[in-house]
Amino acid sequence: MAREIKVGLIGLGTVGSGVVRILQDNAALIEERLGAVVRLVKVADIDWERDRGIPLPVDIMTRDAWEVVRDPDISVVVELMGGDEPARSLILGALEMGKDVVTANKALLAVHGRELFAVARQRGVRIGFEATVGGGIPIIRALRDGLVANRISSVFGILNGTSNYILSTMTVEGRAFSEVLREAQQKGYAEADPTLDVEGIDAAHKLAIVAGLAFGADIEFSTIFVEGISRVTPLDLQYSAEFGYRVKLLAIGKWNDGRVELRVHPTMIPKSHLLATVEGVFNAIYVTGDAVGPTMFYGQGAGGLPTGSAVVSDLVDLCRDRLKGHEGHTPDVHTLQLSKPVVINDIEDVRTPCYLRITALDRPGVLSKISGILGACDISIESVIQKGRRVRGTVPIVMMTHEATERNVRRALQEIDNLDVIKAKTMLIRVEGALT
Amino acid sequence: MAREIKVGLIGLGTVGSGVVRILQDNAALIEERLGAVVRLVKVADIDWERDRGIPLPVDIMTRDAWEVVRDPDISVVVELMGGDEPARSLILGALEMGKDVVTANKALLAVHGRELFAVARQRGVRIGFEATVGGGIPIIRALRDGLVANRISSVFGILNGTSNYILSTMTVEGRAFSEVLREAQQKGYAEADPTLDVEGIDAAHKLAIVAGLAFGADIEFSTIFVEGISRVTPLDLQYSAEFGYRVKLLAIGKWNDGRVELRVHPTMIPKSHLLATVEGVFNAIYVTGDAVGPTMFYGQGAGGLPTGSAVVSDLVDLCRDRLKGHEGHTPDVHTLQLSKPVVINDIEDVRTPCYLRITALDRPGVLSKISGILGACDISIESVIQKGRRVRGTVPIVMMTHEATERNVRRALQEIDNLDVIKAKTMLIRVEGALT
Repeated sequence: MAREIKVGLIGLGTVGSGVVRILQDNAALIEERLGAVVRLVKVADIDWERDRGIPLPVDIMTRDAWEVVRDPDISVVVELMGGDEPARSLILGALEMGKDVVTANKALLAVHGRELFAVARQRGVRIGFEATVGGGIPIIRALRDGLVANRISSVFGILNGTSNYILSTMTVEGRAFSEVLREAQQKGYAEADPTLDVEGIDAAHKLAIVAGLAFGADIEFSTIFVEGISRVTPLDLQYSAEFGYRVKLLAIGKWNDGRVELRVHPTMIPKSHLLATVEGVFNAIYVTGDAVGPTMFYGQGAGGLPTGSAVVSDLVDLCRDRLKGHEGHTPDVHTLQLSKPVVINDIEDVRTPCYLRITALDRPGVLSKISGILGACDISIESVIQKGRRVRGTVPIVMMTHEATERNVRRALQEIDNLDVIKAKTMLIRVEGALT
Repeated sequence: MAREIKVGLIGLGTVGSGVVRILQDNAALIEERLGAVVRLVKVADIDWERDRGIPLPVDIMTRDAWEVVRDPDISVVVELMGGDEPARSLILGALEMGKDVVTANKALLAVHGRELFAVARQRGVRIGFEATVGGGIPIIRALRDGLVANRISSVFGILNGTSNYILSTMTVEGRAFSEVLREAQQKGYAEADPTLDVEGIDAAHKLAIVAGLAFGADIEFSTIFVEGISRVTPLDLQYSAEFGYRVKLLAIGKWNDGRVELRVHPTMIPKSHLLATVEGVFNAIYVTGDAVGPTMFYGQGAGGLPTGSAVVSDLVDLCRDRLKGHEGHTPDVHTLQLSKPVVINDIEDVRTPCYLRITALDRPGVLSKISGILGACDISIESVIQKGRRVRGTVPIVMMTHEATERNVRRALQEIDNLDVIKAKTMLIRVEGALT
């Protein structure tokens, strides 16, 4: 008789249903590859009215998530309910009871990862978190195992499908953010409250996890600079194209001799770069290591089946380890829990070229005033576009600067935006030219 | 004192030197991630005159590869000498002695994989072969672990950097194959004898390995249809662009209900597809699974450090397993050795749209004759370009057909090329429109 590992699932939403479907549809395949059966013995959710289109035996359903955690037969708990509490307590409970945990809860890991990994380590169990970043893309494994020989110098990620869909659509169709967002909500690509996605917070959660692993660093989530895409206009996308760039919501992590730079913001990247061709709801992570050079990992960043694919890959991994006969096995050393604190660069020290769209009254001397301020702040201009597209008496003055520190740019923009000829807050988009 | 695993290396060429450099430069990093020291205790090569720019203690150098295999202290043997014999015997010897093996020898695995994996399985040891495909791209791990939950339906790979460099350069610069090849040889991107690379054999070796893993199939190398890029002309690349395509040497594997289709040939793919943007010596593998959907893995497909990165990742993986305390550990079930024989589709049954460039005398009635033959062979034409670019009295007639079987296309081309108005062998490039 085939050996089996008993698994419990908490949260039967989109991803949870995807996991159940995969375990059902590909049961034979998974058994063959693992050499054992992954048996789902308990599923907890508060809503059992909704039809998810997947057949489940009534006796494995429960409304009490703690029943899953406390079941002594269950070796691995899959947490897919999301959110902070009770997810955190449930995971801690499972770890304390010597169970491995698989989770897709990026917000929780980004903020409470240190605590959870410490407990896992102490109890000799593991947390699988492949599903927290990039949906079905096996990026966690790539960083932990595939690129283990490398000192990673940078990661650039398109980590939020909703934002990428919105920016892609705005670029192609020239429509406004709010309009495309509404459409995305209708299509189910964006949540009713889109803040986490469009304001870059979700991407920052994922960056915290990826950067922690890539740089072996204990990332304090609040140190990540985050700016969303809601202020980007079709005009900015059009100018970007004229300058030879595309705009992506990029999660950027750079390592430089023990100092780490972490930021999420709309970013202009050369349109010939591979990342620039990642469209719609797809995600991609561009990783550079000292031995391997540049690499990229691409796939669907969300959805029940893609994310379910990552969850089940963790399940198989943990089950494989248990089957090798070390219950109470040593956790991998190279996971978040061993990370050391690092120095996080102040965003004000970051140097990038910048795109500036200044909304000025169409009067003589304006450009000279602006360029005077930029010069005084040590910012040199690479090129300027000023075409007569007048809107209510103002013209957009669009500039690309050479590399400048964020500190100087902020100082300059404060002065510029205080001029009485300036009629709107200046739009700033940071540029990454080389992506290394 | 830190635990250590003793490793021996056979073959100090480009990749071997890369491995030594990584083990030296990133020693601290690797020790931290593995929780142990990977110690290189013996290196075999026949040429110790050449300066490789890496310091090695004299007492670990040897000219006798068997010394590495027979050293009882060595747990893992890294075979990087390439070729058939003595590599095969050395690997077999190491496995028989209970050592794990890491190899980058794709030709050997593609042809003798079955034998080697059988021995490894029997002896309870493992063969790491991440470096056989895609240089530093962790594609083997992705297929074995990251996408383990998926039934893989197709893989499309740009697996030979030399060919991709040549095609990219021909496309951009409009120069002839032979000229670009010569330049690639001068730059060190192509071997003095480029056959393996430009005739698709190297890509087919890699396809055998990737497809074996992706489809759980025991691939007989000789069943792979292989056609190289040496007949592709700048004119073909130009027409491809006009039709909206790019030409890549693609390694194609498709699984359809137990039947597997395997082929390597110049392929026209839509220029908007992500694979079409993979330029120069880079490799990429586009994999579609039933749960995850489409994914892509991208990076440098060759070179000492990138390939060394893959070798060292295998080393760390095998060492981790040994440290977990199971010498004589169970090998992973999901590797080539458990693969089952599958039905390989006859190339003549494969259906693709085709690009045809027919070199005909510029006479009335030629097009009608050609289209008559195509029609009689059940091949319908999607579009035709016939412009008056006369070369020695002939004109190129360029056609895109709808999907047709290879059998019918071959029959038609044989008839067409036998017409006395046809002055050169017709150029056929198969098209992949959807890449799924």
